[in-house]
Amino acid sequence: MIDLNADLGEGFGRWTLTDDDALLSVVTSANVACGFHAGDPSVMRRVCDLAAERGVRIGAQVSYRDLAGFGRRAMDVPADELAAEVAYQIGALRVFAEAAGAVVAYVKPHGALYNRTVHDDGQARAVVAGVRLAGGALPVLGLPGSRLLTAAADAGLTGVPEAFADRAYTARGTLVPRREPDAVVTDEDAVVRRAVAFAVEGSVEAVDGTAVAVAARSLCVHGDTPNAARIAARVRTALETAGVGIGAFA
Amino acid sequence: MIDLNADLGEGFGRWTLTDDDALLSVVTSANVACGFHAGDPSVMRRVCDLAAERGVRIGAQVSYRDLAGFGRRAMDVPADELAAEVAYQIGALRVFAEAAGAVVAYVKPHGALYNRTVHDDGQARAVVAGVRLAGGALPVLGLPGSRLLTAAADAGLTGVPEAFADRAYTARGTLVPRREPDAVVTDEDAVVRRAVAFAVEGSVEAVDGTAVAVAARSLCVHGDTPNAARIAARVRTALETAGVGIGAFA
Amino acid sequence: MIDLNADLGEGFGRWTLTDDDALLSVVTSANVACGFHAGDPSVMRRVCDLAAERGVRIGAQVSYRDLAGFGRRAMDVPADELAAEVAYQIGALRVFAEAAGAVVAYVKPHGALYNRTVHDDGQARAVVAGVRLAGGALPVLGLPGSRLLTAAADAGLTGVPEAFADRAYTARGTLVPRREPDAVVTDEDAVVRRAVAFAVEGSVEAVDGTAVAVAARSLCVHGDTPNAARIAARVRTALETAGVGIGAFA
Amino acid sequence: MIDLNADLGEGFGRWTLTDDDALLSVVTSANVACGFHAGDPSVMRRVCDLAAERGVRIGAQVSYRDLAGFGRRAMDVPADELAAEVAYQIGALRVFAEAAGAVVAYVKPHGALYNRTVHDDGQARAVVAGVRLAGGALPVLGLPGSRLLTAAADAGLTGVPEAFADRAYTARGTLVPRREPDAVVTDEDAVVRRAVAFAVEGSVEAVDGTAVAVAARSLCVHGDTPNAARIAARVRTALETAGVGIGAFA
Repeated sequence: MIDLNADLGEGFGRWTLTDDDALLSVVTSANVACGFHAGDPSVMRRVCDLAAERGVRIGAQVSYRDLAGFGRRAMDVPADELAAEVAYQIGALRVFAEAAGAVVAYVKPHGALYNRTVHDDGQARAVVAGVRLAGGALPVLGLPGSRLLTAAADAGLTGVPEAFADRAYTARGTLVPRREPDAVVTDEDAVVRRAVAFAVEGSVEAVDGTAVAVAARSLCVHGDTPNAARIAARVRTALETAGVGIGAFA
Repeated sequence: MIDLNADLGEGFGRWTLTDDDALLSVVTSANVACGFHAGDPSVMRRVCDLAAERGVRIGAQVSYRDLAGFGRRAMDVPADELAAEVAYQIGALRVFAEAAGAVVAYVKPHGALYNRTVHDDGQARAVVAGVRLAGGALPVLGLPGSRLLTAAADAGLTGVPEAFADRAYTARGTLVPRREPDAVVTDEDAVVRRAVAFAVEGSVEAVDGTAVAVAARSLCVHGDTPNAARIAARVRTALETAGVGIGAFA
Repeated sequence: MIDLNADLGEGFGRWTLTDDDALLSVVTSANVACGFHAGDPSVMRRVCDLAAERGVRIGAQVSYRDLAGFGRRAMDVPADELAAEVAYQIGALRVFAEAAGAVVAYVKPHGALYNRTVHDDGQARAVVAGVRLAGGALPVLGLPGSRLLTAAADAGLTGVPEAFADRAYTARGTLVPRREPDAVVTDEDAVVRRAVAFAVEGSVEAVDGTAVAVAARSLCVHGDTPNAARIAARVRTALETAGVGIGAFA
Repeated sequence: MIDLNADLGEGFGRWTLTDDDALLSVVTSANVACGFHAGDPSVMRRVCDLAAERGVRIGAQVSYRDLAGFGRRAMDVPADELAAEVAYQIGALRVFAEAAGAVVAYVKPHGALYNRTVHDDGQARAVVAGVRLAGGALPVLGLPGSRLLTAAADAGLTGVPEAFADRAYTARGTLVPRREPDAVVTDEDAVVRRAVAFAVEGSVEAVDGTAVAVAARSLCVHGDTPNAARIAARVRTALETAGVGIGAFA
């Protein structure tokens, strides 16, 4: 049994990016942008309405406040401010989830905040403090072994480890940094194959050819590439064919 | 029995404006800025914590998205977008109110949105739609006779009429526009006297010298002038001396 | 002899909108977004570099400060602030034009500011004051008969009247408002035919079937639709086939 | 002969911070905020007008794009984007300087960008690339020994070393980080004494009691504290009494 998550609602005003409609027919968990790196109130409302209608779980995709950089630039935000910013975003999204008859069911940091909280304990704890501040003891999605999941556990929150079907892994189970060549798996067949490996074998082939264990309860499919919806659909079909149950994490 | 409200939390990042600490010792309702014209998550959190501690009721002071203009420039925001923006702000504030053990208890539009919804039916209905979207059927503060209060009533929400102790009124009971001379009452004694007149007699002296009836359940004292806290305190003392009960509206 | 202009550089950060590369092979004047409704410094730089390389003239497409609304929401900006905002945008663009060995050669308001300065004398004069403040006595593109062109002339600036090949015209020569049906001409053949009519006959067929005179020195082709580059190329070819010279206005 | 510089124009919209009027009567160089951490077009215009009127030199105080954090949060902005952002800010300010009959005469990074370019070679070179992009080969203000001044020199720009009268120095001549106690000198008499020491002796007393050489051509007096203008005036008077010439750097 595995969850499929994707970043959605990453338009802003006149600009669109993610094919929300198509992806909401494939994934089981929607990481909805909350206005700090992308996502305006109208987009958030529409995505929540559609997700609720299709029974897709809604999560808050929280970010640094950085529209110009799409939340991809690490920022030294003091812990107290970061916690408050995370809570603000969760609260704003909650209005639209609840208006649609759903709830905000989990939290996933976006972009640079996601990457930074893998190693940076202070920011990881600040994100978790923001989740606690927002109430409801929401689960947190993150990389296995990340400071974020440790901080979540320490605070009594459920940490949900996730894997990326289109990212290369080192033999130690960490992601190959984007600045290195071959960090992203672009071959669609390979992406599909790796997704099945995560779900069925709990492991993936690392860049050195060895098999590395990755215990993931959710698989992230990217939403911001032109062919994102098609790849996501292929991944889902391949998982189902392999007998893997698809469903939101417990 | 009358409510005293003030705009609070109108700083942003490095900038401060309202003397939140002093005003929260005087007013019974705090209109907290929600980040669109002023107010960042850290300020919102601090004001909510302080308001809850002192038993001051928390309201969402919603605005056009306009930090550069402090929400004082009318904007032709389409109704659907405006409703979503209002709901977003309420949801964001709710996180901090609830973390402090309180609730967002009402909504008051700020600046240009307040002024526009006096006469503009479409925007008034959009604000009310946003309040409904946010759930909880929150009361709405506005000018007696405004489109906003009519729209609130039509939607089954409580409209709370308010009066301004430091603004001049026409003989018809509307505010003298700010662009006209003498629109603002700057004499402190006069402000205090008028506050008592609103509460005790339900009327105020209009610019033509006649007495005009103004049925207000809340009095707004401004928070963004240097002597705001002192005037507010004088108003409160004068009301108490006149035997007027001070308390949040029912 | 006629000029072809298009709005370019209307991406922001991660988001793209206009096909700048393709359109810069067709138009003679590039209205470059300056960061207030779209356009970040990196986009501005790239568009200026490309425009200079291809000999396309660079203009400042100035806007209200409104990224969330893409500059399409009218705002009551006080005249002094609006003038300063216009000048700021021109100055910012000038750096990139000059670094590319070119200059900012004209100014065209965007979206709601364009529409408002057709009728609103105060805002038209504020835009012109901003252009004057920026120095260089730049020409201003606008609708024939607009307050903007009158204000430009009054200030000693050249007003350049333009026509829209894909917009319907009333019998009086004004644009049919976008809120009305058939305001936009979507048939590509009709767009091409009307472009030639503007250039060759100085007139266009109005919605009531009569021919209305439109004295335009520049033709605007829209850049933010999926087929924008193809339509623009067809317009250019048709004009050339009709013997019309294509070149930036004098 | 020494220059006195201060950060000015650090308001935004409704918010004010620096006492621009008083400080422009004291300093010889005004570091004007350009809209990325503070400063809107109207403020920039007013400060430039006043500076030009009083013969105070105008510099561009460039920053990360971070209004919410007042530019005090380090950001991993890619070099190309940072260079374009620096150029954008210089260009925007230039319009107002030139409209006032002056010029933008130098560049000084603000806050986190200033601190980061002390040690981070990549960002230092990006700032210098932005200055070059903006044309005019402007001098760059920075800390003696910083990567920024090295990068400026490598690019053929004049680096102007500056000292801070109200900051503690280590025995190696670097600033004591703000997070440490006693990083800021708050005693006014000490600030004045240290300013004179920098100018007359070219050295200052370090935290360990030793005298450390600091070769500064400009002295920075802070502008964003309540007593900033008074301290600046005292510093100037003390320097003049000590026979130090006060004037903008050559």
